Amino acid sequence: MIERSDAQELDAVDPLARWRNEFVIPDPELIYLDGNSLGRTPKRTVEALHRVIDEWAGDLISSWWEHDWLNLALTVGDELAPLLGAGQGEVVVHESTTVGIFQQVNVALDLTGDLGRRKVVAVADGDFPTDRYVVEGIARRRDVEVRHRLDDLDGVDVVLRSLVDYRTAEMTDLPRETARARHEGAVTVWDLSHAVGVLELDLPGAGVDLAVGCTYKFLNGGPGAPAFVYVSKRIHDRATQPIWGWFAQNEQFDMERSFDPRPGIGSMLNGTPPVLGLTAAREGIRLSVEAGIGAIAEKARLLTGFGIDLADQFGLENVTPRDASRRGGHVAIRHADASRLHDELTARKVIVDRRDPDILRFGMSPLTTRYVDVFDAFTALADLTACLTA
Amino acid sequence: MIERSDAQELDAVDPLARWRNEFVIPDPELIYLDGNSLGRTPKRTVEALHRVIDEWAGDLISSWWEHDWLNLALTVGDELAPLLGAGQGEVVVHESTTVGIFQQVNVALDLTGDLGRRKVVAVADGDFPTDRYVVEGIARRRDVEVRHRLDDLDGVDVVLRSLVDYRTAEMTDLPRETARARHEGAVTVWDLSHAVGVLELDLPGAGVDLAVGCTYKFLNGGPGAPAFVYVSKRIHDRATQPIWGWFAQNEQFDMERSFDPRPGIGSMLNGTPPVLGLTAAREGIRLSVEAGIGAIAEKARLLTGFGIDLADQFGLENVTPRDASRRGGHVAIRHADASRLHDELTARKVIVDRRDPDILRFGMSPLTTRYVDVFDAFTALADLTACLTA
Repeated sequence: MIERSDAQELDAVDPLARWRNEFVIPDPELIYLDGNSLGRTPKRTVEALHRVIDEWAGDLISSWWEHDWLNLALTVGDELAPLLGAGQGEVVVHESTTVGIFQQVNVALDLTGDLGRRKVVAVADGDFPTDRYVVEGIARRRDVEVRHRLDDLDGVDVVLRSLVDYRTAEMTDLPRETARARHEGAVTVWDLSHAVGVLELDLPGAGVDLAVGCTYKFLNGGPGAPAFVYVSKRIHDRATQPIWGWFAQNEQFDMERSFDPRPGIGSMLNGTPPVLGLTAAREGIRLSVEAGIGAIAEKARLLTGFGIDLADQFGLENVTPRDASRRGGHVAIRHADASRLHDELTARKVIVDRRDPDILRFGMSPLTTRYVDVFDAFTALADLTACLTA
Repeated sequence: MIERSDAQELDAVDPLARWRNEFVIPDPELIYLDGNSLGRTPKRTVEALHRVIDEWAGDLISSWWEHDWLNLALTVGDELAPLLGAGQGEVVVHESTTVGIFQQVNVALDLTGDLGRRKVVAVADGDFPTDRYVVEGIARRRDVEVRHRLDDLDGVDVVLRSLVDYRTAEMTDLPRETARARHEGAVTVWDLSHAVGVLELDLPGAGVDLAVGCTYKFLNGGPGAPAFVYVSKRIHDRATQPIWGWFAQNEQFDMERSFDPRPGIGSMLNGTPPVLGLTAAREGIRLSVEAGIGAIAEKARLLTGFGIDLADQFGLENVTPRDASRRGGHVAIRHADASRLHDELTARKVIVDRRDPDILRFGMSPLTTRYVDVFDAFTALADLTACLTA
């Protein structure tokens, strides 16, 4: 029988406990288990935004050089790289996740050669909507057939898939699935939106060619923060993206010439990068890098395991994998009254989120979530479900 | 002979003079004539960013509903609409200008029917680099031929062009050129980056179908601020964009279905909008709307005219149209030593910008630029050129 004091003891010895102090937490009574949708606000982000506003107001156009805004999308990418196990010059942070996915699926299509041939892109029906929509949109314009399943990749050219399922938190085997696709001649674009900042990743070790993911969830990058794009160094000389803009141009201010992309990851840039959003994203990224992704991933496993144990104790239906090595940073509970329970939890200042038709997601952000938060949230849910059945 | 006192008298009676107080101006001695590259920082933007950080930190995920972040890209678009003469529901503000151009050129290509047929896109060799690069990139993947001239539009399907030339400030005739293209069966995508916020525009009256433009120049939206996209109501039922993301989905959180775009301008949305960037952009947009685009455009004509008169007085080579109805918001001076002059002006705290090989641009932002700024800047340039020839 797990007691609240057990949670308190776990918090007392939590090596990451101090990182919570790095965040703005106006209401200490709010139990926020939705950092997998929108991470909390780092204090340093508030300072950094003040600083960038001062740069803008004071140094105006020269800030692009003096404060190196021109390279911000690349430098923030380099700062994020360790979280992916990636090297310098393999990551860029700039546009929305949707644009990043669009870009990377097109890169992958071109990598499979023969621009004129009909291609097959596989994306699972249960994957996150944007992933599916992007592929549908590409198929409308390019000669592409969409395969809605991943079990048989025979004849598939490109696979787009999430590493962590946004509903159940189930994690797929990154090296094995990358290799399986490659064996069939397919290039995989990995959507790491629900994985980055909560799992220890080694994209080069896993043989990953292309990946994309968002920074506003576990990375605490701010609402609508720009997404990252990863392109393995191995394929830099062959990767060509579809949206050719002036920030990808070699010698950008030599404006008379035709498009002549920068070498390496810089060729993935598009337009003028969002300086305010990038400045915020950088601070969130830095916190995760400083805290150490190994320690973060370990705490994510422990927090989610604690949540699953509580779900068992309270007779709740857990649909998250019990094997800690096979799940991301949230616990999914299935309940027929999920919608009503979500509203009742919110009224009790327990913030989780909900995915139709019947899933409640308890997001565990290792830098801000305490074991007592998990205990209190599951206890509140258990009380509510007891009321419903009484 | 124009004297500095003439400039002071013009400032004294300038009906827009008070708007300068709405901006953060840390160094009153700096003469900033580069608001056509990066506009100044509105004081209200600083406040708005504080507010949105508080919303993020305090209300977290619920901000998407409580503070209507979900519709921010649309509401900011509606707020910008009057600057284009557009109606409600015709404008959205979300991704980078490059992505916006990519999106709109693809929309235009599809509007010309028959997805399988080879299409012709015309873009002038002298147009802004991103515009040309985007078209080159599209031509690499779609069956598209690029025509590098605009004088003969016979057989052209899509025209992409800037309303105001980024070097000379020459403005093209919007209704006439839109009609000329339409007469040849072509759809025009107008790039209004150097026009919005400094010219009085009436896109519906000019028969414009599609337009895109940036908000970080004359609209003072902040570095890398999101771009706007305009789609005329007349073609909403036929416009389909290429990057299908979850923010364009009807009933966005009903996640099980295939892509089913929102009606109207909402179908142009892509991914999660950049809330920080949009919040900043909104304040800049609001200032221009409040000040009145008619008064702004009038002051732009007077400021640029004053600059041209000074250029004449000092024997400088002006390459900006002398007809006020045919120019945008900057004055372009040609000089063989442009690069060196640019650096010397900067050392004297006169900030203008430079475009290779030999153009100096004096940007006039009607909300912040004073006649004395224009006088002092041209006087400084005249002194420098006198030194060079002495």
